[in-house]
Amino acid sequence: MTRDTRDTGDTTDRKSDGRKPPPDAGRRSERSRRAIYDAALSLVADAGYQKTTIEGIAARAGVGKQTIYRWWSSKAEVLLEAFLDLQDQAAEAAGGTPFTFPDTGDLAADLKLVLRATVDELLDPKFEEPSRALAAEGVVNAQLGAEFVTKLLEPQLQLYVDRLRSAQAAGDVRADIDPRIALELVVAPLAQRWLQHSGPISHAYTDTLVDYALSGLTPR
Amino acid sequence: MTRDTRDTGDTTDRKSDGRKPPPDAGRRSERSRRAIYDAALSLVADAGYQKTTIEGIAARAGVGKQTIYRWWSSKAEVLLEAFLDLQDQAAEAAGGTPFTFPDTGDLAADLKLVLRATVDELLDPKFEEPSRALAAEGVVNAQLGAEFVTKLLEPQLQLYVDRLRSAQAAGDVRADIDPRIALELVVAPLAQRWLQHSGPISHAYTDTLVDYALSGLTPR
Repeated sequence: MTRDTRDTGDTTDRKSDGRKPPPDAGRRSERSRRAIYDAALSLVADAGYQKTTIEGIAARAGVGKQTIYRWWSSKAEVLLEAFLDLQDQAAEAAGGTPFTFPDTGDLAADLKLVLRATVDELLDPKFEEPSRALAAEGVVNAQLGAEFVTKLLEPQLQLYVDRLRSAQAAGDVRADIDPRIALELVVAPLAQRWLQHSGPISHAYTDTLVDYALSGLTPR
Repeated sequence: MTRDTRDTGDTTDRKSDGRKPPPDAGRRSERSRRAIYDAALSLVADAGYQKTTIEGIAARAGVGKQTIYRWWSSKAEVLLEAFLDLQDQAAEAAGGTPFTFPDTGDLAADLKLVLRATVDELLDPKFEEPSRALAAEGVVNAQLGAEFVTKLLEPQLQLYVDRLRSAQAAGDVRADIDPRIALELVVAPLAQRWLQHSGPISHAYTDTLVDYALSGLTPR
């Protein structure tokens, strides 16, 4: 799942969160950008977050480190943008356009569809190693963890919030439910199994989570 | 929450999972054992898992490294036992005996009690840094992650499974629910917030998780 505001040329919100503004499309070589993202993701997968440096990314990408510093101010920024880009690519490969949360009127079906796609992404080898390296660093490094949450995780979770609010408006979810907590009943079990290697993940598993969360565990 | 089989002198099950048998109580100096646990936990908190070595633990504990190798065969084993011991201590400090899952007949109350205690433990500074160091390594190191799950996490989760089975027998949880998945609706959101710094944790938060999971999100 990805934001649908990438590469639209609208840089306003990106400036407001402290990033350097991206260069004009004409100046920013698409080939260099892609090489830098690929190098950043493969290096963090191979060496871990701590040993990944701007110099190392530049060397692997075959660009000067000034090229990287012109566009980003830290390795964390490079990695976060590389991840956003990776997810955009996955979404485009899957459906042609950056992902938005479906709203067919059938909440269970919509949640299952999105969670199945997330399972596929988590099981994709291209995605797994760099994701694990970044997630592991986020566990012990509260600052990176917070940045990861603000820029990557929370925008995705807000799509669940919006979908649950729509379900509340339709009377399909109780009005007294806090959607930001409710979404965790289906998202967090998948995240924990993946992060902690505490169980297998599959479409059947996430379907079950949705059924349990919507109906509850007690008899009706 | 801890196993209640620690330090009973029954070593059968510990041999079966490949550990060296613990020495007789008479040979194993309680003071050395405590010093080694403390050193292991503080070293992994300070230096991270990768840079923690048996030599480093021995130096910090003021014992020879052969003392450690006589009792454990790897740093992972030392750390896992140090964690089990830390949790036993916390349980004893809280209630006097190693923890077992309450079964008062009120499932919601029992789940809330246990989750509140887990929140307190996760917010305890003594517990937090070594836990994060070990959890972070588990994310990127599947073997350590699996060992952590088998020896630490899963025995705790099985207590939830048992409590949910008892609730099924009492008619308080639907018979078609898989307890091993159902428990994740309340345990995983807490774990994810803590691991990923993705939200605050509190007693009110875990109480809400229990209410949502038991009743479900859809109107009744």
